[in-house]
Amino acid sequence: MAEKLTSREQDYSQWYNEIVQGAGLAENSGVRGCMVIKPYGYAIWEKMQAELDRMFKETGHENAYFPLFIPKSYLSKEADHVDGFAKECAVVTHYRLKNAEDGKGVVVDPNAKLEEELIIRPTSETIIWDTYRKWIQSYRDLPILVNQWANVVRWEMRTRLFLRTAEFLWQEGHTAHATKKEAISETEQMINIYAEFAQDFMAMPVIIGLKSEKERFAGAEKTYCIEALMQDGKALQAGTSHFLGQNFAKAFDVKFATKEGKQEYVWATSWGVSTRLMGALVMSHSDDHGLVLPPKLAPYQVVIVPIYKGDDQLEQVSKVALAVKESLELKGISVKFDNRDTHKPGWKFAEYELKGVPLRLALGLRDLENGTIEVSRRDTLDKETYDIADIDNKVEQLLDKIQENLYKKALAFRDSRTSRADSKEEFIKLIEDGGFVYAHWDGTSETEELIKKQTKATIRCIPLDTEQESGVCLFTGNPSNMRVLFAKNY
Amino acid sequence: MAEKLTSREQDYSQWYNEIVQGAGLAENSGVRGCMVIKPYGYAIWEKMQAELDRMFKETGHENAYFPLFIPKSYLSKEADHVDGFAKECAVVTHYRLKNAEDGKGVVVDPNAKLEEELIIRPTSETIIWDTYRKWIQSYRDLPILVNQWANVVRWEMRTRLFLRTAEFLWQEGHTAHATKKEAISETEQMINIYAEFAQDFMAMPVIIGLKSEKERFAGAEKTYCIEALMQDGKALQAGTSHFLGQNFAKAFDVKFATKEGKQEYVWATSWGVSTRLMGALVMSHSDDHGLVLPPKLAPYQVVIVPIYKGDDQLEQVSKVALAVKESLELKGISVKFDNRDTHKPGWKFAEYELKGVPLRLALGLRDLENGTIEVSRRDTLDKETYDIADIDNKVEQLLDKIQENLYKKALAFRDSRTSRADSKEEFIKLIEDGGFVYAHWDGTSETEELIKKQTKATIRCIPLDTEQESGVCLFTGNPSNMRVLFAKNY
Repeated sequence: MAEKLTSREQDYSQWYNEIVQGAGLAENSGVRGCMVIKPYGYAIWEKMQAELDRMFKETGHENAYFPLFIPKSYLSKEADHVDGFAKECAVVTHYRLKNAEDGKGVVVDPNAKLEEELIIRPTSETIIWDTYRKWIQSYRDLPILVNQWANVVRWEMRTRLFLRTAEFLWQEGHTAHATKKEAISETEQMINIYAEFAQDFMAMPVIIGLKSEKERFAGAEKTYCIEALMQDGKALQAGTSHFLGQNFAKAFDVKFATKEGKQEYVWATSWGVSTRLMGALVMSHSDDHGLVLPPKLAPYQVVIVPIYKGDDQLEQVSKVALAVKESLELKGISVKFDNRDTHKPGWKFAEYELKGVPLRLALGLRDLENGTIEVSRRDTLDKETYDIADIDNKVEQLLDKIQENLYKKALAFRDSRTSRADSKEEFIKLIEDGGFVYAHWDGTSETEELIKKQTKATIRCIPLDTEQESGVCLFTGNPSNMRVLFAKNY
Repeated sequence: MAEKLTSREQDYSQWYNEIVQGAGLAENSGVRGCMVIKPYGYAIWEKMQAELDRMFKETGHENAYFPLFIPKSYLSKEADHVDGFAKECAVVTHYRLKNAEDGKGVVVDPNAKLEEELIIRPTSETIIWDTYRKWIQSYRDLPILVNQWANVVRWEMRTRLFLRTAEFLWQEGHTAHATKKEAISETEQMINIYAEFAQDFMAMPVIIGLKSEKERFAGAEKTYCIEALMQDGKALQAGTSHFLGQNFAKAFDVKFATKEGKQEYVWATSWGVSTRLMGALVMSHSDDHGLVLPPKLAPYQVVIVPIYKGDDQLEQVSKVALAVKESLELKGISVKFDNRDTHKPGWKFAEYELKGVPLRLALGLRDLENGTIEVSRRDTLDKETYDIADIDNKVEQLLDKIQENLYKKALAFRDSRTSRADSKEEFIKLIEDGGFVYAHWDGTSETEELIKKQTKATIRCIPLDTEQESGVCLFTGNPSNMRVLFAKNY
């Protein structure tokens, strides 16, 4: 608690790790690449889940649950899909252990080898479309609008808490439609929901766009994404929504009888966000003092710290503090009253700063005499004393202000780091400085690859709101009719 | 829809499978022993989760998330624990696939063998106590009251939807305490919460008791359980809460400094319920017409079916139906209005009967003229016509009645199938007939084993409310000072 955080300027990556661990969000486990999500971090994830789940249900989706295991042969059925996922799979080969012959511990029982290996799902298109074949016969069975909250595993070699872990938590929506048009409209609806969630709840501005062919999901015809800019000038892909065409329907032979009685393949979408959003949240708002949380996702929005000497004073202060807590809770505000006598107020102040609690209320004897209470905003670090009689309304207003301010600040930061490059040199310089760069590109994967090699920048997306504009590709001189969005990325 | 269910009397097990699949709760997947939980089934599970999660949080617990994988060596650290779980483990041995040399599909890459195999968690004591070692230094860090919602895998050879599946969903609470007394009191608190949930929400009476040594959780010093009686006279263990003593603290070296500065091992509990509860719910109340759901866990408590000919009539009826729906929703009642024109009312009636919707409202033109509405109770299959003006209050009362009635009915059934046996012959006969049997037992695992071999009955529990009573063991003649609860079981 007493130790100062590494600053962003000193070492951004170290700063991130210190916040994630110091604020009690997550830590590395004894299992390579797998994290433990700690209670405070998980409480934020639960808030994210609740809002997203509500938004999914309001748009007609239902939850279901599909197996963790995917038979190896399923993965091979869609050619691009297996190429994309086979290289980072956890593979189950046996189903039993037995006592070691030397009496030390247990070993894999060679007699318990599976006939067909099982893959821990890296994503569930294959097992789900194998199931949908049984659910879909006629147009009356469509659409299917299903979501799943689950854990998935991708065997990443270089992992970072929340941003890239071997196991992570996510939701994956998988929908089935009678027409291409309906499926595309679902794909777009879901990326818009993600954008709305990012902006309204995470206070994180995002750019909606399409991935280039190279960055597309393995098995998709179109991948929509939302891209956010972190404080170190690197982009983070925060959610994707895929139009899968009829690829999985064909791979798993899922056809339906149309109204006219014809047999046609079903159209598919899938879409997901993951605990990666936790990393994005940390990096969007936090400062050198610790985590900064938007009120709408904070496990508790307000903490009340009593200032006192001795039990008598604590009792007096507690009475008023608990009344304040109650009046705030009546307004739907979540409050923690920290009356622990094992820690001093100064220690608590530092702890809640590190944990990013939006508002800290401090209450002492003098406040009781004056009918006041001291309020500190985590986002601006401003401190002010307010009339205690009206504190519930004041706090309500302040929480709204903080939510709004965080978004504005993040947007202003992004704007300050978004540029247009009109020459290769300018592009290289801007990318090196960090930030979003709009530039012309000739539309080929080869050039995209070349740019990545030379500058480490990737095409984050082809923004949906991009206007047509004639130009030439900065790296090949070939013609281009619009700018796309480049950045280095997480 | 048109086909009749197999009756309970004809084939109980077939009846169960037909309800689970016919009502859209779950189905088998392409992966051996793993089920797909379908949207209607998952919606019930979500209701269960919400209530349990609320009860856990009200008693001070927080959620967190620990890795899916458990290094093989962790499992070996607690001797009983590994004995209990090693024989049914899914083992990850590799982390990559590669293209097969014959060009057909993918194969496990032999160069990607893990140094240490990873077990898919069958339960998480080991990985969690490995983590707690880092969280606990002093008495100030205690208690830790953490719960996890997760999937687990136990490689069962004979599986049945919900009741016994290789992968299942559950919650597992893992708490750490400074004193034995506090840990035991936590263990008891949690089994009481499970009992309360079973009775108040599932409308399922349960007996709370302690497991015999033989049936105890692998690694526990005491296992509390709740036991319910299914309609075929077999018992089902619906939840367990374990006092783990210092076993895991010792295995993972988790000590804390007491207030007095001494180093002591931490005391532990763990407790869980799973999607098995879904099976218990189905078997507690359903009848030969299909599923019967208690209102408190029904995805929708009321369905309104319009009776009409032609679009004009549908429009007239819909107007009133939607007003009824709104008035019910204002009371917090969940309602589905089924205005599909692809199915006849009779078909819909049968469907909602099969799906166990507590109340069905039917509304036709004649009702509109008379200001009435027809209400059918799923539990009794009674039909009555009520004044539509007061229908919201009526429905509210009826839902309460149904919830109560289901519990009473289940309790009466259990009472009718609960007996005391005072001779071996009587015991054998009663067990054969099915039901709970209270009998004297000499307290040894050998006798318990013998009884199981001869009768298939196991000791379900030593009920907490059992009174001391002198007697002799029915199978050995040795002295006994109380009766314990026997039954055949799931």
